[in-house]
Amino acid sequence: MMHAYRSHTCAALSAAQAGEDVRLSGWVHRVRDHGGVLFIDLRDHYGITQLLCDGDSPAFAALEKVRAEWVIRIDGTVKRRDDSLINPKIPTGEIEVYVRDVEVLGAVEGDLPVQVFGEPEYPEETRLTYRFLDLRRESLHNNMLLRSNVVRSLRNRMWDRGFTEYQTPIITASSPEGARDFLVPSRLHPGKFYALPQAPQQFKQLIMVAGFDRYFQIAPCFRDEDPRADRSPTDFYQLDIEMSFVKQEDVFAAVQPVIQGLFEEFGGGKRVDADWPLIAYRDALMWYGSDKPDLRNPIKMADVSEHFRDSGFAIFAKLLENDGTEVRAIPAPTGGSRKFCDRMNAFAQANGLPGMGYIFWRGEYRTAGNNQPLQGGSTGSTIARAIQMIREGSAVDGKFTMSEADAQKYYFDRKVEDGEFVLHLEAAGPIAKALGPEKTEAIRTQLGLGIGDAVFFLGGKAEQFEAVAGKARNEIGRELGLTETDSFRFCWIVDFPMYEKTDDGKIDFSHNPFSMPQGGLEALMGDPLSVYAYQYDLACNGYELVSGGIRNHRPDIMFKAFELAGYPKEEVEKRFGGMVKAFRYGAPPHGGCAAGIDRIVMLLADTANIREVIMFPMNQRAEDLMMGAPSEPTNEQLRELRLRVLPKEA
Amino acid sequence: MMHAYRSHTCAALSAAQAGEDVRLSGWVHRVRDHGGVLFIDLRDHYGITQLLCDGDSPAFAALEKVRAEWVIRIDGTVKRRDDSLINPKIPTGEIEVYVRDVEVLGAVEGDLPVQVFGEPEYPEETRLTYRFLDLRRESLHNNMLLRSNVVRSLRNRMWDRGFTEYQTPIITASSPEGARDFLVPSRLHPGKFYALPQAPQQFKQLIMVAGFDRYFQIAPCFRDEDPRADRSPTDFYQLDIEMSFVKQEDVFAAVQPVIQGLFEEFGGGKRVDADWPLIAYRDALMWYGSDKPDLRNPIKMADVSEHFRDSGFAIFAKLLENDGTEVRAIPAPTGGSRKFCDRMNAFAQANGLPGMGYIFWRGEYRTAGNNQPLQGGSTGSTIARAIQMIREGSAVDGKFTMSEADAQKYYFDRKVEDGEFVLHLEAAGPIAKALGPEKTEAIRTQLGLGIGDAVFFLGGKAEQFEAVAGKARNEIGRELGLTETDSFRFCWIVDFPMYEKTDDGKIDFSHNPFSMPQGGLEALMGDPLSVYAYQYDLACNGYELVSGGIRNHRPDIMFKAFELAGYPKEEVEKRFGGMVKAFRYGAPPHGGCAAGIDRIVMLLADTANIREVIMFPMNQRAEDLMMGAPSEPTNEQLRELRLRVLPKEA
Repeated sequence: MMHAYRSHTCAALSAAQAGEDVRLSGWVHRVRDHGGVLFIDLRDHYGITQLLCDGDSPAFAALEKVRAEWVIRIDGTVKRRDDSLINPKIPTGEIEVYVRDVEVLGAVEGDLPVQVFGEPEYPEETRLTYRFLDLRRESLHNNMLLRSNVVRSLRNRMWDRGFTEYQTPIITASSPEGARDFLVPSRLHPGKFYALPQAPQQFKQLIMVAGFDRYFQIAPCFRDEDPRADRSPTDFYQLDIEMSFVKQEDVFAAVQPVIQGLFEEFGGGKRVDADWPLIAYRDALMWYGSDKPDLRNPIKMADVSEHFRDSGFAIFAKLLENDGTEVRAIPAPTGGSRKFCDRMNAFAQANGLPGMGYIFWRGEYRTAGNNQPLQGGSTGSTIARAIQMIREGSAVDGKFTMSEADAQKYYFDRKVEDGEFVLHLEAAGPIAKALGPEKTEAIRTQLGLGIGDAVFFLGGKAEQFEAVAGKARNEIGRELGLTETDSFRFCWIVDFPMYEKTDDGKIDFSHNPFSMPQGGLEALMGDPLSVYAYQYDLACNGYELVSGGIRNHRPDIMFKAFELAGYPKEEVEKRFGGMVKAFRYGAPPHGGCAAGIDRIVMLLADTANIREVIMFPMNQRAEDLMMGAPSEPTNEQLRELRLRVLPKEA
Repeated sequence: MMHAYRSHTCAALSAAQAGEDVRLSGWVHRVRDHGGVLFIDLRDHYGITQLLCDGDSPAFAALEKVRAEWVIRIDGTVKRRDDSLINPKIPTGEIEVYVRDVEVLGAVEGDLPVQVFGEPEYPEETRLTYRFLDLRRESLHNNMLLRSNVVRSLRNRMWDRGFTEYQTPIITASSPEGARDFLVPSRLHPGKFYALPQAPQQFKQLIMVAGFDRYFQIAPCFRDEDPRADRSPTDFYQLDIEMSFVKQEDVFAAVQPVIQGLFEEFGGGKRVDADWPLIAYRDALMWYGSDKPDLRNPIKMADVSEHFRDSGFAIFAKLLENDGTEVRAIPAPTGGSRKFCDRMNAFAQANGLPGMGYIFWRGEYRTAGNNQPLQGGSTGSTIARAIQMIREGSAVDGKFTMSEADAQKYYFDRKVEDGEFVLHLEAAGPIAKALGPEKTEAIRTQLGLGIGDAVFFLGGKAEQFEAVAGKARNEIGRELGLTETDSFRFCWIVDFPMYEKTDDGKIDFSHNPFSMPQGGLEALMGDPLSVYAYQYDLACNGYELVSGGIRNHRPDIMFKAFELAGYPKEEVEKRFGGMVKAFRYGAPPHGGCAAGIDRIVMLLADTANIREVIMFPMNQRAEDLMMGAPSEPTNEQLRELRLRVLPKEA
């Protein structure tokens, strides 16, 4: 007997079933009426099958009435399509089904607020209100499957490497970890509140103290955060990892194959770099202006203060007389045109800086008595190609070869002994003039630049310009086509400083207070600002994917670390009592990390909107428009919790 | 270079490594000092390795100081044990490690509040306060691994059967589903609250409406329930399942292989019955006094009212004159002794009934002129064995064979033509006397009982005695050794009534309001109390493991169903707006179920305490004693949420 709803899914039929009687169920994706012949694309979770019906069928009258997104069940016969009508793009493209019977399983009342076929644009609020329609679209459907498969793959990869998944409490104690807790009032203990965990940090450490090893969890985390475009305002998922008896390098060795394998599996053919360099936090800021650098961009910034100190460029020379200042260079290979340099200067101004000074190098070449000025910057131009070929050491016009080292020599008005070029290099821009040729050339040499290249300068205290410098680096890399678009490049950021000076001059933790200070107790006896933590991030293409640390499992070192940040012992006991108590009863050295699932899926799905990779997301005001959350509680609920909502302050 | 903490785990070494220098880290499980020779069992997540040290070792002085549950790192040499000292019970039993160096990684301050070695008893509060010590015990450690492996296996089995895991929101809308919601006050929308989901019921249905198929999730569920021993007072996990275009039998076909396979994998060798009968809800109550019957117990109750109607047993005869009353029999094979019958009568009284009347059958047999009274009830006795052999049709003393049918005939004072037995059957007890031999015999025949067996009677309205009848059935099965102890037996309970009459005579949903009524809209036009729902439970060994239904996906049928239960359309729209709205835009027929993970693990771990299968459980007052939850909020937190806690009412 045939199943009540389907003998096949909408992706199952091929020419092999031609002539068979089949039953299908699904959504009406699209109806086309070709004058007495109906074509309907029937869609289910698995795929699409073309239905066909004409006046000879007893189902015709009923089928004529169905509209887009109705759910129907049909009986019919599989027909091979004419060769000219075969659609090789879908698995069922060889066939269509001639409909003899139809049953409406779920009609649509009124107009569709969100059309599925063709995925037309709607305001996000509309899409979220009718998420159940929005999700029927192929792009979102595929994102959800991608997410599911990513999570499954992560789990399997963790199990395969000897990790075990344990679930930690969701209704638990408030434990300030930086962000704001969501609170849950207790009915059995009125006036007291539970909290939703910002992360299972304390629990995973307790699992290690409890004698387990190699823990992981795909863990929901809850933070009551102010809205931001690229994060969920309520909760997110992370791959949470912890290991006992490990050093930092053990965590790296455990994580890299998991993440790298995942990106190879789901990266859509993009190259996944297997070389994951370790970059010190300070170097990352210096070189990339970010602690989550995008290494697809080859630009590496550098400190060029020495060339400006006591130089003729008074602004920087004067600036460098102040403590803690420096001049940072952003090299911009192939960016050597005034137009580009001026645009980047404007970019810096738009980002709150007075501007970015620059030098760019241009030149001219001469062949057989023909003088041409060199205008750099356009990689497509003859000049640029010539320079490129000189750099590569390959022939220009088949007549001339020169190594880069040689080319650099000849940039300076020297004759090429055996060729027909003369290359003349000129450093352009007011800074070059003020610095003079010697210092300008020293900068060029330090950065390895040449004709057609540019360099931008930012001066002051690093923390004042570093963020903009990082942005400018991104912009330059993107604008000049230097940044790869078909790869994932990873790096570990290590050696985070344990402490920082706050604006009011106090010492506070700069990142995670629970990380082990490098050098242990002894290191804490010296200058706090020179202490590094065993703490690390994994950056990929400009995003932070993973964050972790080797934990401080020694109560003595923990109390000392907190004391330096101004927290007395009692305060630590009070705020982190469960964990501190546990460390007194035989705690192993341990460490781990957490990887953001939403962020990973966003990277793999190539979207910048987190709501495209979450099944039922909140909007940016932390509202669920479909379910109507949050909502007013009943008086009965408030009474049971012994709570009163206060009126808005006047 | 050797790893900082270990070259091997504490389960890795065998005689193959004899002579090797190794490094191990772990907890000191036990220290034995054999006069100058120290033996230490070193434990980690993976196993235990025996360490050995004597005064010749430079580590001796330091090792003498370590105590139970300290974490240490040792360097030493693997030694094969003398043959007489080999411990075949542990993987490392062939070797020990002679310690040459030791480092204390984590000491214990003061006394251990919970000893690990030997697992001595402590009050549960102590164990929960020091859960990180409690979890180091082998039994709990194993339970946690079991749970992890069960969840992993469930996931793999679901994926293997074409299901996909999707995550549904945890911070969401209040949706009354029977239990109480946990609320979460919104800071961005003061005065409004989110709720934690009691189950992802609405979301999984929305996922079906959104065009997905075969959803599953290992889902956290939150219910603010009053304390009960065998459930968590805050949250629990369920395997949540939903499928589109299915009938009830499709859900059964999807679930059985998953659960059966799981129990075969983790059931510790117990037999897993592959026959999962479908039992109507009403039959389950009639036969087993429970909608989650334990089929390991062969006892099946029966309605014996007809034999008591107008009978000489006045109490029941009179009772049966009232509408809706009946007399139910609990057969008790091999229970035929006055002592046992009186004990069960007392059991019924202890459970709030006036008592349980009974009949039991005894007899005598005669061989070669030797008269012996038959005293039933003891399966070990000669008599019982004789009866057993007669029933089986095998020889008694090699002289006599008789089929059970024949034996039953001869129970009544007829001579065995060709043997030496005479079996005389006597029905004992006051009820038998009052009923008279004919009705008594009719009861015996209906229930298939004989010499040495008993039957208990309960009279009145079924709902008044059914629960106790079910308990008595369990007790009888257990006491008489009839209930299997080495098997898992499953059954689907189906055909739940859609509605029931409340105490005040109104019609209300008896179970899930979202299930599709059998017979659809038409069925709702007749007597609501005669409507069954497409709703089902899976029972195993007396526990409800799974519950589910085919959903009502038709708005018209849904509004009618709610109307019958007294909910106007507006109320339904208000309470379940998100889902009802979705059903108007093309909803597929769908259904599913949910399986309780904690319950499954409890069955497999053979424990009746849910806290033995949860890593960090709440106590029965919904407190986390280790982390100190719930706790007082700060004034700042309350202010941000615009909440005030009211004082206790006078």
